[in-house]
Amino acid sequence: MRVYGDIRSGNCYKIKLLLGHLGRVQNTDYEWVHIDILAGESRTPEFLARNPNGRIPVLELDDGRCLSESNAILNYLAASTRYLPEEPYARAEVLKWQFFEQYSHEPYIATARFIAKYLGLPEDRRAEYEAKQAGGRAALDVLESHLAAHDFLVGDQFTIADITLYAYTHVADEGGFDLSDYPAVQRWLVRVSDQPAHTTMNDPV
Amino acid sequence: MRVYGDIRSGNCYKIKLLLGHLGRVQNTDYEWVHIDILAGESRTPEFLARNPNGRIPVLELDDGRCLSESNAILNYLAASTRYLPEEPYARAEVLKWQFFEQYSHEPYIATARFIAKYLGLPEDRRAEYEAKQAGGRAALDVLESHLAAHDFLVGDQFTIADITLYAYTHVADEGGFDLSDYPAVQRWLVRVSDQPAHTTMNDPV
Repeated sequence: MRVYGDIRSGNCYKIKLLLGHLGRVQNTDYEWVHIDILAGESRTPEFLARNPNGRIPVLELDDGRCLSESNAILNYLAASTRYLPEEPYARAEVLKWQFFEQYSHEPYIATARFIAKYLGLPEDRRAEYEAKQAGGRAALDVLESHLAAHDFLVGDQFTIADITLYAYTHVADEGGFDLSDYPAVQRWLVRVSDQPAHTTMNDPV
Repeated sequence: MRVYGDIRSGNCYKIKLLLGHLGRVQNTDYEWVHIDILAGESRTPEFLARNPNGRIPVLELDDGRCLSESNAILNYLAASTRYLPEEPYARAEVLKWQFFEQYSHEPYIATARFIAKYLGLPEDRRAEYEAKQAGGRAALDVLESHLAAHDFLVGDQFTIADITLYAYTHVADEGGFDLSDYPAVQRWLVRVSDQPAHTTMNDPV
């Protein structure tokens, strides 16, 4: 099994984080192939054959089949494990948080962080960076109100919904978001990073 | 069971379309509650209690529990039916297309359509409308290349992945996208609308 990605990308880090929880060992159970998107490595013919949408991460199975979209990969890898509930409503709530993340959270928080951290906040992207702040705060408000009353996002147990939202929330400060305004979010980040087998974005890949 | 939504919204129409395929009859099996987002009806305290993210559609179950995010609702309603495969990789592929829709398709095609159709393409939104065209065409290119070789999106059978992408693709012209450039997409649209129990956006709700 191979993961094509860049560990600094929250969408790719999600996969590494879940694989750690599942006890899958790098270079034994899976291989990590670094893709440098700024160097165009996600737009080569070889990469587009794996994901015609030209985005990372991509999971390549041993039989060569590929799967893209970080949250779809999480669902695939977590199926029949404790990280994805079987009960239908809980399972749908996991998806609710994952679609919330891709539509209402990632395009603001991850994009602001990309402009600041990857691109160095160039002057011609500053207006876009500033425009991302309100949407990112709205997403953090939704998380804060839920986490003020719950330990985890779904069913008060640690699931792939938490992995999904942790990925970019724990580095939201790199996109200009001050998490000291979100105390319940901060406590939840600690709760997630305190889980056994947690790996960080900075652990070697 | 209640659906809170606006049938002109593709995200809401998805739910009505699936309910029709499942043989659920309006005013018998479910009630449709119209929400006018331009009149602020998705920002009232009552609505925010159902979905703190303030977006339609929302599904309210008979016991009062609510579920938001159109694609999460589709997964919930389609569980254990022919519209959602049980096989793990096929099920993950359904999700892959659904996340593709929310991240790479809807923000371009649905937003351009909203600006043109709902707002009447006002001058101060024209630059944004124009900026949405390239991303929408990129998403249609991905669909075209897949559908040139497949009858449906996953496993050559009609699933909620098709319902998900049909919703805004079949009205993409209202966002300025000329589908005559996408013949395989056009043939697939006919294939979807030819399914038994198909309902249109214009059928009464």
